[in-house]
Amino acid sequence: MELQVRLRQIIIFFFLLLTVLENSSAARILSIAKPDRHDVAASARWLVSQNIWGVLSTLSIEHEGAPFGNVVSYSDGLPGKGNGVPYFYLTTLDPTSRNALKDSRASFAISESPIGTCKRDPMDPTCSKLTLTGKLLQVNEGSEEEKVAKKALFTKHPEMMDWPKGHDFRVFKLEIINIFLINWYGGAKPITVDEYLRYKA
Amino acid sequence: MELQVRLRQIIIFFFLLLTVLENSSAARILSIAKPDRHDVAASARWLVSQNIWGVLSTLSIEHEGAPFGNVVSYSDGLPGKGNGVPYFYLTTLDPTSRNALKDSRASFAISESPIGTCKRDPMDPTCSKLTLTGKLLQVNEGSEEEKVAKKALFTKHPEMMDWPKGHDFRVFKLEIINIFLINWYGGAKPITVDEYLRYKA
Repeated sequence: MELQVRLRQIIIFFFLLLTVLENSSAARILSIAKPDRHDVAASARWLVSQNIWGVLSTLSIEHEGAPFGNVVSYSDGLPGKGNGVPYFYLTTLDPTSRNALKDSRASFAISESPIGTCKRDPMDPTCSKLTLTGKLLQVNEGSEEEKVAKKALFTKHPEMMDWPKGHDFRVFKLEIINIFLINWYGGAKPITVDEYLRYKA
Repeated sequence: MELQVRLRQIIIFFFLLLTVLENSSAARILSIAKPDRHDVAASARWLVSQNIWGVLSTLSIEHEGAPFGNVVSYSDGLPGKGNGVPYFYLTTLDPTSRNALKDSRASFAISESPIGTCKRDPMDPTCSKLTLTGKLLQVNEGSEEEKVAKKALFTKHPEMMDWPKGHDFRVFKLEIINIFLINWYGGAKPITVDEYLRYKA
């Protein structure tokens, strides 16, 4: 009889463990729930704060001005304290920063897909996507802004702290001029840079 | 005594179930194992065949020629039969296809990150990334190539079949001119378009 009780306890324990395991992956990625789709500024800022990587496009020096997209990590601030401006840690050994230093026109594209909340195809309009177009500028070395940006980058991407010192990594930011957001059917949603930057969670 | 045996059986069953659950996510995504990093062509083709979305960059008509990256789904062929050329299903309601029809210069960037095999940060060189630069061209309507491309796209992205007929979706392909691949430390790996296209799995 005692064994039957123990048996029941073990079964309950395993079911609880299964529940925890099934939800652990989503819990690690998501720290804030997806906002209401009608709140366009909240949707855009949520995408930027929750994601960790995207594609940064510049005008290629090597390939006759072709748009060159490059997979990069980024951060828009410390957890819960992002300002919506994406900061990058780029080496001049890589074409993206060299392109930007010659011609700053750039865009940064991110998808909801890596966050894990998409129920449909990554190109379905209900799976949000955002493209910020603007100028990719190097942040002044030694400035307060660079210090804050580095802290934000290294907090979201701890590995960056160990990237080789000799590789000339520099902090860049995208100064946003235009916002292209799709977070539902009906084409790009209207949102100004001001609405985006002023948004507070 | 019989109960103890049953208890042991139940415990073994749950551990097996846990093992299956822990690996099921990776199994769904991966159909071919990651190739040896020294085989550069295999690495690039594997990234293209296993991924389902990336960022397609064109030169923006609306934003003074700025590079405009856009999250898109794609396919390079039927499962196990890809040819390395990414095909897209784009509507002219969207800026990317309109940009390409004016100036075909484009690039397509993908990351290993969505495949689920990255052990480190998405920007760490061991997490592969690929940028194909070239010309984004509309595939001739009614051609054999368009038929094959649609089959490849609809097989990888079944939802595309239901996208609104009135939205003027057209098949585009990236004619590759240059390949930028990072799949380990030491910068971009040398690979020609010919080596990439000729590769057979």
